[in-house]
Order: sequence, then structure tokens, then C-alpha cells
Amino acid sequence: MTPQLTPPLTEVKNGTVTSPAGFRAGAVYSGLKTPGPDKLDLGILVSDSPCDAAATFSQNSILSPSVTLSREAIQGGGKFRAVVVNSGNANCSVGEHGIIDAREVISLAASQAGVRPEEVLICSTGVIGVELPMGLLRVHMTEIELVDDGGMDLAKAIITTDTRLKTRAVSFEVGGKTVTVGGIAKGSGMIHPNMATMLAFLTTDAAVDSGLLKQVLSDVVDVSFNLVDIDTDQSTNDTCILLANGAAGNSPIEAGSDAADTFAAAVRDVAIHLAREMARDGEGATKLIDATVTGAHSVDDARLAARSIVSSPLVKTAVYGRDPNWGRILMALGKTEIPLDESKIQVFINDIQIVESGAAIPFHAESVVQALGQPEVYLRVALNVGDGDATAWGCDLTEEYVVFNSAYTT
Amino acid sequence: MTPQLTPPLTEVKNGTVTSPAGFRAGAVYSGLKTPGPDKLDLGILVSDSPCDAAATFSQNSILSPSVTLSREAIQGGGKFRAVVVNSGNANCSVGEHGIIDAREVISLAASQAGVRPEEVLICSTGVIGVELPMGLLRVHMTEIELVDDGGMDLAKAIITTDTRLKTRAVSFEVGGKTVTVGGIAKGSGMIHPNMATMLAFLTTDAAVDSGLLKQVLSDVVDVSFNLVDIDTDQSTNDTCILLANGAAGNSPIEAGSDAADTFAAAVRDVAIHLAREMARDGEGATKLIDATVTGAHSVDDARLAARSIVSSPLVKTAVYGRDPNWGRILMALGKTEIPLDESKIQVFINDIQIVESGAAIPFHAESVVQALGQPEVYLRVALNVGDGDATAWGCDLTEEYVVFNSAYTT
Repeated sequence: MTPQLTPPLTEVKNGTVTSPAGFRAGAVYSGLKTPGPDKLDLGILVSDSPCDAAATFSQNSILSPSVTLSREAIQGGGKFRAVVVNSGNANCSVGEHGIIDAREVISLAASQAGVRPEEVLICSTGVIGVELPMGLLRVHMTEIELVDDGGMDLAKAIITTDTRLKTRAVSFEVGGKTVTVGGIAKGSGMIHPNMATMLAFLTTDAAVDSGLLKQVLSDVVDVSFNLVDIDTDQSTNDTCILLANGAAGNSPIEAGSDAADTFAAAVRDVAIHLAREMARDGEGATKLIDATVTGAHSVDDARLAARSIVSSPLVKTAVYGRDPNWGRILMALGKTEIPLDESKIQVFINDIQIVESGAAIPFHAESVVQALGQPEVYLRVALNVGDGDATAWGCDLTEEYVVFNSAYTT
Repeated sequence: MTPQLTPPLTEVKNGTVTSPAGFRAGAVYSGLKTPGPDKLDLGILVSDSPCDAAATFSQNSILSPSVTLSREAIQGGGKFRAVVVNSGNANCSVGEHGIIDAREVISLAASQAGVRPEEVLICSTGVIGVELPMGLLRVHMTEIELVDDGGMDLAKAIITTDTRLKTRAVSFEVGGKTVTVGGIAKGSGMIHPNMATMLAFLTTDAAVDSGLLKQVLSDVVDVSFNLVDIDTDQSTNDTCILLANGAAGNSPIEAGSDAADTFAAAVRDVAIHLAREMARDGEGATKLIDATVTGAHSVDDARLAARSIVSSPLVKTAVYGRDPNWGRILMALGKTEIPLDESKIQVFINDIQIVESGAAIPFHAESVVQALGQPEVYLRVALNVGDGDATAWGCDLTEEYVVFNSAYTT
């Protein structure tokens, strides 16, 4: 039930954003996060050559100046060479200084990476409402070494409350050239993306038509990061960036070609892998919840319903407690107010059917309790009224989430 | 900061749905809930004379047959005499038997109350997916004694995970006659109403024009029960019913009169009191959160923002942990995507200002931590871009919520 890698894609072992050719990265500890062994909080991703870029951003009405600047840059078009990112401080809701500081961070990163400031995108994540300690950043930015295998360090530098790194890369052939798509992401809290995502950086050495690149990212975000829900909260800083530098030397991938389908599959594979890892690593989580809704009137209905199921506190606590309280699944489905026919509904937990025609059927309760004790719990609702299918990912809600979030800054 | 009673309204001590003249109620234990001292789970509210009625219902796509039947009855117009209600079993998602059983419950209640079945409304609350044990209900319905002061017993019979009863009544004069508005409610979990509410029964002995009655209930629900949020989940069974029997002997209250304004204020007082009590008694809650958003572009924007603040898990856990992490308040505000001007935002916690012009100002942190330790926490955000104001109510999110909901049926 875990997604399988679709041929012709092959997984790159320990793959990251520096797996594609021509990308380097590096990171240092600059004092933004609480000190600790092996902690990093400031990093740069750089491409040896200019990249086509696509990106999606948080829809929150309150935005970090980092998001504002990157969004303006992307909307302005042009090519990009680097992304600078810090964790531990969101650079958000700090007044006019936020934009001044973000511009200086871009300038510092450009110097360090040897690129022009207008070729640099910026991301920040962490506590809201505290000014960036620019004195520290000015010193430590110069210590960043940009190396070919720096992707893991960059993955480490972007995490906040994550308990593990989230990385992935896959390869395939285009006209005899091997191209690679890599990615890293951070997740954990404040996650309920809406046409945007938490921090996720995707790279590829493929040459890709720039319109196709934007279309692929938009389509992929809709079926990956936008279907993750940890706590219904949406950050002020969510950003997903896809950079393509063409270093693989393939003829540019054009829309409508077989290569375009394969490229989209590769980006989707990386993004869905990272999205599932975010859900699995939700704050305090002990289990990944994978909710699939099939046979809705539309794909939008199915997405809405699948997200509603993984985000319902009552479903999340029931999964935590291994409680086969399927009424809560139907409640979460129904509160979306999507059209349905109750008498056609089937519900399955890890492939054990527990509801037929909208009502309970006899099932072996102990098997369901055992299924709910697995590290991956699959909830499936078949609506049987149309062709709309979707899968969303979340996690259980535990006491640990509460403990963790009730003492984050104090 | 607790709402004050507005003259000419006066509070009726220990007021309930039987405080208005001509209403009786009674309840018994019928075996639907887990046995316990003083437990009741089946009750009837009856009026000595036919009532005009107004009601709002859950918008969930999955509805209990109890909701379906009551909604049909209300839409059909006519007068009503009684409400039968059970707790411990939602009579929902049980297949075709649900509607057959609900009709029989109505018929049993009508016999017991001495009214016609078509004059009876029905409500159910409790676990989803289990058939009503009709054998028990047939026996115990006949034991219900309908008495003048039965309102407290009825309040007890409708609760599920509530830790306290929610009751209220106020009186005022209309043309020399004293009229009373009373109410009872149940709350606690699965609460995120949308044009509807959890179980709330409101009664009045005032004679009220039936169009005005519906308008008043609709307006009041919008500023009371629809602004309570415990866990973003919306029940399949939410119902709010207002019955007016005219037993006070006043000349009917007509729209546009001073009496109409006073009547609306009385219903609003009772409903807001019950709504706040629901929030205060949210599952696992230790504190009431009262979030007010002022100066939004519209009242709808203010309502959306106030609800988003009280429903954000990150705000709820911060309040629990007495953590003045105001960035989460701005995040919750912004994720609604309402238009705002960040540079005009002010934030107050229990009247201590902590944000001016969208950025932190120096504040006495210990005072704010102390304020967050009070049983009622007031969060106020002034947007200063328009005239839209609203208040919503919620509660903190604690480990107890998780413990409680991870072991509800098993």
C-alpha cells in the first residue's frame, strides 16, 4: 500500500537536492536555533548555471518578507542560481526591518555563492515576531562551504521540530542522457497547506521547457504537499521551489512528450515521498494516516473529503487510541458537505471492510485494532457515486503534540 | 469582560427550558449511556399548548434520521408541542433502521406526552453507527414524568461528555406581562458548527410572530453557537430548537417593535451564555478562550478570523501552556486569507497590548503569562481597516483531550 516506484524511474540512494548534476549546497550553525550537537540553521543551495524556476507560496494574509521577496522574484520571471534559507527564525511580523534584513541576507548569500542578488531566492522558518540577528548572519554566512554533496547538510539546516531528515531523488533517461530529480523538505507543525507548502526544495538537472516546469510543479503540489495535514494551521512562510539547470545535457523536455510524462512522474514521486514523510513526522505523531476517498463526484470532492478525514482531531485521536470508531470517519467525510449517497458508502481500515451500504457490518474487531496499531494506517472510503479519487496524508494526535506545543517558546 | 446582562433583562435563578410558563419536562435513565449515579439519557420537553417553532440543523452530509425527521417537520410548518431527546446513541449511520426507529421514538414520546406524533420533534446524540435499543426505549419512555420543574433533569439527560450542565433563563416585561426565555444545551466534542449547532433547546412563553421567531433564531445562532469551536469537527446531529407557546398572555411581539428588540436580546443572552459554557466545557479544557476581532473589512471577515483564532491547535496549546507566543495568533488570523494591513494590527491579551503596527512592543511578559493562567483568556486583535467586529469562543487544547478521545468507545 506504500507507493511503488513506477518504471522507468529508479531511486538514487541517499538522494537530495545535490544529486542532480551542477547543484552544490552547504550549511552552518549561526546561532538562530538552540545550540545542540550537529545543528545547522543557515544554508545555501547553488546551481553552477542559471535555472528555470517554479514555486508555490503560502496563501496566509500575514507573510514573511522572505516569502514576499521570493514571490516577487518568481513572478518577475528570469533565471535563478541560488536559494538561501535559515531556520529558527521566520523573519515574520517584525515590522519594516523584516524586508530590509531579508534583502541583506540575499546580498550576503549572493556574495558567498558568487552569484548576483537578483538570482537568489530566500526562505525562512521558525519563530514569528523576532528580528533576525543580522550580526550573527553576517559572520556565519561567510563560513558556508558550497560542495557537491552538501544536500544532506542543507536538509539538516532547514528542519525545526522535525525528528528526521526528509530527502529523495530519482533518475530516468531522456534521449540517452540520465536526468535526476532531487528534493528535501521540512515539516512537522503549522501544516495545512493551501496551494502552497511548507519548505520544500526540488532540483533537476534536466533541461525543461519553462512553461512545462511551472505546470508540473503546480500539478504535483496539488497531489502531494497540498494533501498533507498535520494540524490545520498554515504557516506564514510556506514555500516550494523547483529549479531546473539543464546540466544533464538533454534536449529540453517539451509539454506533450513522453519525456514530459516521465519527468512529471519523477517530480511527483519525489514530492509525494517528501509529503508522506512530513505527515509521518508530524509533531508528536506515532503513525502515518493515509486516507483515500474513491468514487466521489469529482476529484475536488475527493480531495476535500480525504483531507477532512486526516485533519479531524476525533479521527486522529481514535487512530492514536487504536479505536475502530468508524463513525468519526463518516462524520469527517460528511462535514465537508460534499454530495454523497449514504446508502452506497463502504469503509475499509487497512483493507478490512467495516462499513457496507453506510452501516456497520460484522468485522473482526481485534484485527482492526491491530491494523490501527501499525505505523501506517490506511483508511479508505468508497463513495461509489462518481470517478473522483484522492489520497491525503496526516498523522495521529497524541498527548506529545500538546506537551510539545504548549511549551515551544517559553 | 464577561458579557453583562443588558437591562431590561433580568436573570431567572437556576433558569432552564421549564422556566417559561406552560412548559414541562422529564427524563429517565434507559440504559443508553454507561450506567452511573444520577445518569439520565432519555427525556421529553412538552408545552401545554401548541408552539410556534424555529430550528437550525447540522450541515453535515451524513445526518442522523433524527435530524432528517425534525428538519422535515420544521420545514413543513405547523405547530409543535414536544421534543423527545436521547443521549448515548446518535441513531446515525445504521442503515434503514434509523428512520424506522426514530419514527417509533416519536410515537412513543407522543403517547407519553399526550400529544400527536406530528407535534413532536426528535434529537439524538452519542455514538454513531449503533442501532437504538428499541426494547429499552419502549419500556423506559413510559416512566418519564413530565413536571413543571423538569428542565434540570432534561439538561442532565442531553449531556454526553459534558462535565457540567448548561442552563439559563432571563425575563422581561412586554405590555405589563412578564415573559421568559429559557434554554439548555449540551456541548463538549465534535463542535464546529456551521449554520447549525450542537443540541440546544430554547423555550419562551412569549407570543411571537412566527416570521420574527425564525429571524431571531437565525440571527442569534450566527452570533452564538456558530462562533463556538472546540475541535473543528461538526456533528451529524447538531440541532437548535426555539419553541414559543404564548402562555405569558402578551400581545404577539411583531417585527420592528421595541419588544422585538428586547426579545431578540433575551434569546441572544441565553444563547451566548450557553455557547460560552459549551466552550468552557470543551473536552479536556482548562480555560475559556474568548477571541475578539475588531475593525475587519466586514462582519463576515471578523467572524472568520475570530473562529480561526479559537480553533487553531497552535493557539490552543499556547494558551494551555501560558505561552505568550502571539505569532500564532497572527498566523491563525492570516490563514483565513481575509484582507488586512499588517502595519495596522494591534494584539491584546486580557487588555495588555503586546503588538502595535504588526510587530511586538515591549510588554511585561510575566503579566501576560499570568493573564494566560486565568480561567477566561481574552485575545483581542484590532485590524483597524473597517467596522467588522466579532467574538468567538473556544478552549485550550490539553493532553486530556487526547487521552479522552483516544479511548471513547473501546
